[in-house]
Amino acid sequence: MEQWANGAAILGIIGFIIAFAMYLSLKKKDAGTEAMQELAHQIHEGAMVFLKREYSILSVFIIVVFLLLWLAPGLGLYTAIAYLGGALCSIVAGFTGMNSATMANVRTSQAAKEHGLEAALNISYFGGGAVMGIAVASLGLIGLGVFYWWFNGAGMLQYLSGFGMGASSVALFARVGGGIYTKTADVGADLVGKVEAGIPEDDPRNPGVIADNVGDNVGDIAGMGADIFESYVNSIIASIAIAATMSLSTLGWQGAQQSYIALPLLLAMVGFICSLVGVWSVKVWGKMGPAEALRYSTITAAILFLIVSYVLVRSLGVQMGVFWAVFWGMIAGTLIGLVTEWYCSGKPIRVIAEASQTGPATNIITGLAIGLESTAIPLFIIVVAIGFASYFAGLYGIGLSAVGMLATVGATMSVDAYGPVADNAGGISEMSGLGPEVRKITDELDSLGNTTAAIGKGFAIGSAALTALALFSAFGQAVGLQFIDLTKPMVVMGLFIGGIIPFMVAAMTMTSVGKAAYKMVEEIRRQFREIPGIMEGTGKPDSAKCVDIATKGALFEMLKPGLLAVVAPVACGFILGAEALGGMLAGATLTGALMALFMANAGGAWDNAKKFIEEGHYGGKHSDAHKAAVVGDTVGDPFKDTSGPSMNILIKLMSVIALVIAPLLI
Amino acid sequence: MEQWANGAAILGIIGFIIAFAMYLSLKKKDAGTEAMQELAHQIHEGAMVFLKREYSILSVFIIVVFLLLWLAPGLGLYTAIAYLGGALCSIVAGFTGMNSATMANVRTSQAAKEHGLEAALNISYFGGGAVMGIAVASLGLIGLGVFYWWFNGAGMLQYLSGFGMGASSVALFARVGGGIYTKTADVGADLVGKVEAGIPEDDPRNPGVIADNVGDNVGDIAGMGADIFESYVNSIIASIAIAATMSLSTLGWQGAQQSYIALPLLLAMVGFICSLVGVWSVKVWGKMGPAEALRYSTITAAILFLIVSYVLVRSLGVQMGVFWAVFWGMIAGTLIGLVTEWYCSGKPIRVIAEASQTGPATNIITGLAIGLESTAIPLFIIVVAIGFASYFAGLYGIGLSAVGMLATVGATMSVDAYGPVADNAGGISEMSGLGPEVRKITDELDSLGNTTAAIGKGFAIGSAALTALALFSAFGQAVGLQFIDLTKPMVVMGLFIGGIIPFMVAAMTMTSVGKAAYKMVEEIRRQFREIPGIMEGTGKPDSAKCVDIATKGALFEMLKPGLLAVVAPVACGFILGAEALGGMLAGATLTGALMALFMANAGGAWDNAKKFIEEGHYGGKHSDAHKAAVVGDTVGDPFKDTSGPSMNILIKLMSVIALVIAPLLI
Repeated sequence: MEQWANGAAILGIIGFIIAFAMYLSLKKKDAGTEAMQELAHQIHEGAMVFLKREYSILSVFIIVVFLLLWLAPGLGLYTAIAYLGGALCSIVAGFTGMNSATMANVRTSQAAKEHGLEAALNISYFGGGAVMGIAVASLGLIGLGVFYWWFNGAGMLQYLSGFGMGASSVALFARVGGGIYTKTADVGADLVGKVEAGIPEDDPRNPGVIADNVGDNVGDIAGMGADIFESYVNSIIASIAIAATMSLSTLGWQGAQQSYIALPLLLAMVGFICSLVGVWSVKVWGKMGPAEALRYSTITAAILFLIVSYVLVRSLGVQMGVFWAVFWGMIAGTLIGLVTEWYCSGKPIRVIAEASQTGPATNIITGLAIGLESTAIPLFIIVVAIGFASYFAGLYGIGLSAVGMLATVGATMSVDAYGPVADNAGGISEMSGLGPEVRKITDELDSLGNTTAAIGKGFAIGSAALTALALFSAFGQAVGLQFIDLTKPMVVMGLFIGGIIPFMVAAMTMTSVGKAAYKMVEEIRRQFREIPGIMEGTGKPDSAKCVDIATKGALFEMLKPGLLAVVAPVACGFILGAEALGGMLAGATLTGALMALFMANAGGAWDNAKKFIEEGHYGGKHSDAHKAAVVGDTVGDPFKDTSGPSMNILIKLMSVIALVIAPLLI
Repeated sequence: MEQWANGAAILGIIGFIIAFAMYLSLKKKDAGTEAMQELAHQIHEGAMVFLKREYSILSVFIIVVFLLLWLAPGLGLYTAIAYLGGALCSIVAGFTGMNSATMANVRTSQAAKEHGLEAALNISYFGGGAVMGIAVASLGLIGLGVFYWWFNGAGMLQYLSGFGMGASSVALFARVGGGIYTKTADVGADLVGKVEAGIPEDDPRNPGVIADNVGDNVGDIAGMGADIFESYVNSIIASIAIAATMSLSTLGWQGAQQSYIALPLLLAMVGFICSLVGVWSVKVWGKMGPAEALRYSTITAAILFLIVSYVLVRSLGVQMGVFWAVFWGMIAGTLIGLVTEWYCSGKPIRVIAEASQTGPATNIITGLAIGLESTAIPLFIIVVAIGFASYFAGLYGIGLSAVGMLATVGATMSVDAYGPVADNAGGISEMSGLGPEVRKITDELDSLGNTTAAIGKGFAIGSAALTALALFSAFGQAVGLQFIDLTKPMVVMGLFIGGIIPFMVAAMTMTSVGKAAYKMVEEIRRQFREIPGIMEGTGKPDSAKCVDIATKGALFEMLKPGLLAVVAPVACGFILGAEALGGMLAGATLTGALMALFMANAGGAWDNAKKFIEEGHYGGKHSDAHKAAVVGDTVGDPFKDTSGPSMNILIKLMSVIALVIAPLLI
């Protein structure tokens, strides 16, 4: 049965064809008036320009790494090719998602105008979210499937980890660059437009508003997609790597080694099929309302997956414990998502809103305290998941628990990617003056998207931590270490150096947003000052210039943190040795996971505390409490959309680089 | 020569007599007018009330732990007695420091009025700072000396670590309670007095101003003293513990085991004598100005110590490498101090001040980014120190490098403790209307105190991290673990749980300040509203009520984080086992050190950025930039004075508890 894993690429290709068919069907939908199409075109162009420039900068980096891997003794051409494959798959995933999202946004507005809520949901979900979700999972299966089938046997691990490294390195730059872009544009447009010029959000007179809408796509669609794509492939790679080197006889486990090696990929295949069913089920659940439709679609996929994977594990003849590892991974992911949702919408946001009454300082202190506190339960859930997974299936179980979290990525990512499409649709409705009725529909879809995004973020962080730990275990085995001994000073040194890196990357990315946003503010101010008739609507704002500034700022600023993440594990490995590198990975995973949760949850809580006040609590809009809450929200922006999400990829990238260079460290 | 270590207690007693003589000489100094004496009396009373109540709550805790240690099979009565000894020494140190500080403050004001700068420096330094500094070091030598002499040989380790645990547990509560008190009073007094009522700082009409001055003593004198005291004794204990269990033949080292065991205590004795010289040298350097006097006194002590300890190591006939470990420890401490000073006074504060021009949000983002960034260099210095120390002298070297940092604590602590005395003197001068001339002198002494405090904080954090690591190594040896293997899921679980705890304690303490300060604000508002003639100076504010609120708030709020820190390592050790506990200590030390640096430096930088603007930059006082900077300063208050400093003790306390329960985990 394990030979079915060789068919992963074929299943992936079928999936990609389905995604493409959905894309074509989306394309045929009504894109509204000429004005709407023009706006959509500008957003599309802005997003594509960003992606093209980003990838052309990255291509230099990719070629250099390709050559280094090729020429490194002990790695060679095939590792380099696999690396290239991983990078390309990630790039294709980004382009696909971006294309469909920037096409779905305007069609969602039009559907909301012509046909109402359900039609708008269908387009934003199937056309925007699901195309991305299915494409991401398909590309993962295609890439891993090809290298699994091609190199099955000796050396496979090396090539697979090369693939994972390709996916990770593109993802880090995409996440950091996209994160800086989206906040640069957001802060710039808001600060000058809303605060200084006093015009509403998404007003077409604001030169930064197109860049702001582009930002939603490059940050939340391309960035998020690349992030999830690399968690997905790396959790599978880590599990395969552990399976290939573990000793069944020592563990006393039944079944064939090859079955354990094939299982992670088989689970991904099964999960993919269940995801397709989950996506399709939105058509059924849609009758019950959009919130139910989205929630039940992921639950459908998850329950189906658990059933089928139980049967799969049974019929493969491997230890039943591995199923329980998968099971606990999925439970842990769901619980972390719920906790994240609570911190970003439950009592904590009311506490922050209340503290806003005594000014910005207490708003900030409360938000920071809640963010710090919010790390405890999710990480504790991860600890419990590690405990269960390893109790049932050792280190292999830790890898499989991450696979369990991510196997139905096709369904969960569809829900995640739908949010920014709905957000964009709101922007287009506003800019083209479709009226309050339409705006109400898009707002409902948008606010729903915020909730699903919070759950998705929890999933992303949980799976990132488990994936990083699984890669770390795989590294330990690959490099042939009997143990990574914390009582050795070298390991403690590695642990500390690793722990510093997430703090440095967080500092760098926060500073970057500030720097790039400053340029943006200057430019928008200049346009308001110099373009005659801009406020009356007779002068046309130069949106392209703002897009250009955000693009350049983001791409320039992404380089330093990106290079730090790539160079640090290599330097540590070669200078301090393999064991110190192991310590470094553990340290980085720990502080990276903590910072990811802290920053994402504090940012989300500040955002929603502001919205809570805007709903009329503690004085409502324009009250002093609201002004204080706006300060918190602004601080939270780079927290939740730039620095926080970068952490996820950072810890996985460092681990997978260690895995790739493992043969050189023995 | 190693038998000289048995004389540690005698040297300590001599030291304590010197401190007492200095205290008596201080007492004879002129305490100024009746009004001044009345103010000083109120501050003294407030501080004593807090300490007495704190210690009576703690005595319940201490008795419970005493009984638990006594009854625990494998620990027994002597460990319990040693624990009691450590707790008592810490309490005595707190009382001594508080007594001399609250006596020196008013005498400093009077000396400034009557005799000028140099006389005021002499009283605040010798009467306030040095009495505390010498007392802390003396009590350390007395306590350790007694148990070293009493139990030399079998079981000594157990008793010494009991002593360390006693010192640590009192210190944690003192630090957390003191930190909450000082910020509660500060925020309460400032918010209502300065902002709402519009009266200046330290105005006697403000009901919270006495509590504010009490806070400087309970936070910066008693809290800081307990912190340094326990770093001091625990670094020595950890080194002795490592020395007792290491195998000289395996290491290929020359000399007798007993020499290695005695060395840490001998270094402390030598360091103490050098400190006395350093303290005395202020009389000489005082001619060059107060800044030079304080700086040169610590440098004098340090250089002298390095010379004498070189001779000591030589004549003991042990490996010369151990001297280099001491040497690198001292260098590392100094470098970390300088980096801390730079972050709290150099370019970073100008960057924050500049960012304040665009409002509170950018002020906060910049401050947070700088705080995060500021962790990198100090932790890297610690990593390098670990590398050098362990290269020259293995794990023993790590312990000795911490001893090296702390051996001249008599001199460095004197400089640290002098700051709050000068600060208080300023408050008393203001409240009793001694005029601008006097205030200028006390302000100069105060601002000097801020710089020395920054350096002292760097030292405290650096030594805490190294001490925790040394305790961690000692724990590994005591529990007989061959290794603490990071590839085991159990250890990773421990690492993660450990990593969470500093985040939780930071969240708890930040929230506590907010809660307690809220009550304080309400009370001060009530008094301004209800006491007739309070603003005209005819109605007397009820200061005692404010002192009471701050006291109750601080004592209630210190319990939760304190208990978490005590219970967590015990629970982890008994439930998950010794190896997982090892992982926990490593995780807590890593994130604790990061958070300590992040919070202390961000808080210090925000504070000084505000002061920088107040000097007239970016619009000066009352400008929008200044308002934004005040927000940052308020956020920074609990960062730098409550949560940040708690981290130092947290990580040491967890490690020393692990060391104490080690025999139960074998």
